[in-house]
Amino acid sequence: MIYAVQRSGYHAGMVTPRSTPVSARPSTPSDRLWSSLVGGDVAFLLARANARSLARANVALAEYDLKVRSYSVLALAADGSRPTQRELSEFLRLDPSQIVSLVDDLESRGLARREPDPNDRRANVVVATERGRDLHQRARIAAQAAEDDSFRSLDESDRDRLTALLRAIATDPAE
Amino acid sequence: MIYAVQRSGYHAGMVTPRSTPVSARPSTPSDRLWSSLVGGDVAFLLARANARSLARANVALAEYDLKVRSYSVLALAADGSRPTQRELSEFLRLDPSQIVSLVDDLESRGLARREPDPNDRRANVVVATERGRDLHQRARIAAQAAEDDSFRSLDESDRDRLTALLRAIATDPAE
Repeated sequence: MIYAVQRSGYHAGMVTPRSTPVSARPSTPSDRLWSSLVGGDVAFLLARANARSLARANVALAEYDLKVRSYSVLALAADGSRPTQRELSEFLRLDPSQIVSLVDDLESRGLARREPDPNDRRANVVVATERGRDLHQRARIAAQAAEDDSFRSLDESDRDRLTALLRAIATDPAE
Repeated sequence: MIYAVQRSGYHAGMVTPRSTPVSARPSTPSDRLWSSLVGGDVAFLLARANARSLARANVALAEYDLKVRSYSVLALAADGSRPTQRELSEFLRLDPSQIVSLVDDLESRGLARREPDPNDRRANVVVATERGRDLHQRARIAAQAAEDDSFRSLDESDRDRLTALLRAIATDPAE
């Protein structure tokens, strides 16, 4: 039931350096703290697995001047979903103002544009431009490689099992 | 391979309101976007499940004037692990400066204190005070209830399976 664990903005390299010689310590933090109650907690493990996955993805996406958040918006704009900003906010669980600023950024880079929503005159849908779709194609390959790396300790059937378990939690309708 | 999804600071209620009448929309965002490629992605599901788990935990911990991050530090300080700040930083994947500020906060509230590390004169270990251990005991019950709520869609064996799969990812040694 413990789970700080930062997500984006975290740099993988930040965690490794250790100024104290290993020999001066009784054991590594991993040895000691993993055996704590915290270390066996499912919510903590969820947070830590997510932090690693996000860190890897952000590193991979940096080449395309994207982060996981902007990439997520671009991907949903590029796949024909035609999401409204409200839908993006709900689906990605980001504050509406964060979505506006992510879409603004993609728009200013010529990667996406807002179009009127035929179902709601007060809303806009977000659509990728051709350039946006092209960047998404390339970034997707990098993100996929990062994902494969993050989940490499699982074989395919374990990964399918994990997907199914996470889907049950992630889509549980009650908030 | 998509996974924005915010973690702490997110308020569960933020996502629900919808200004457009449901009848005016072809389907809910969930219907439409969950069927996108993004919606089936394991890293996205990981991020979303984590976001929900964190949101619930933060709500539960608010009663104790704790957030998931401060609670995590308090828990590790309370369980006899005697972590250094560096170990906390590594284990919780938070920036060292964030750990310092979390420990400062706990210390100013009389919940934890820094003690010299017998293994390294340049380091301090973080130890909960009696008051901190007492608060942890009570907060732990609330956090556990939030966790049970977050994972209620899984039965016990599925939850054990999820724990094992996440542990494999979370403890994969390569960074």
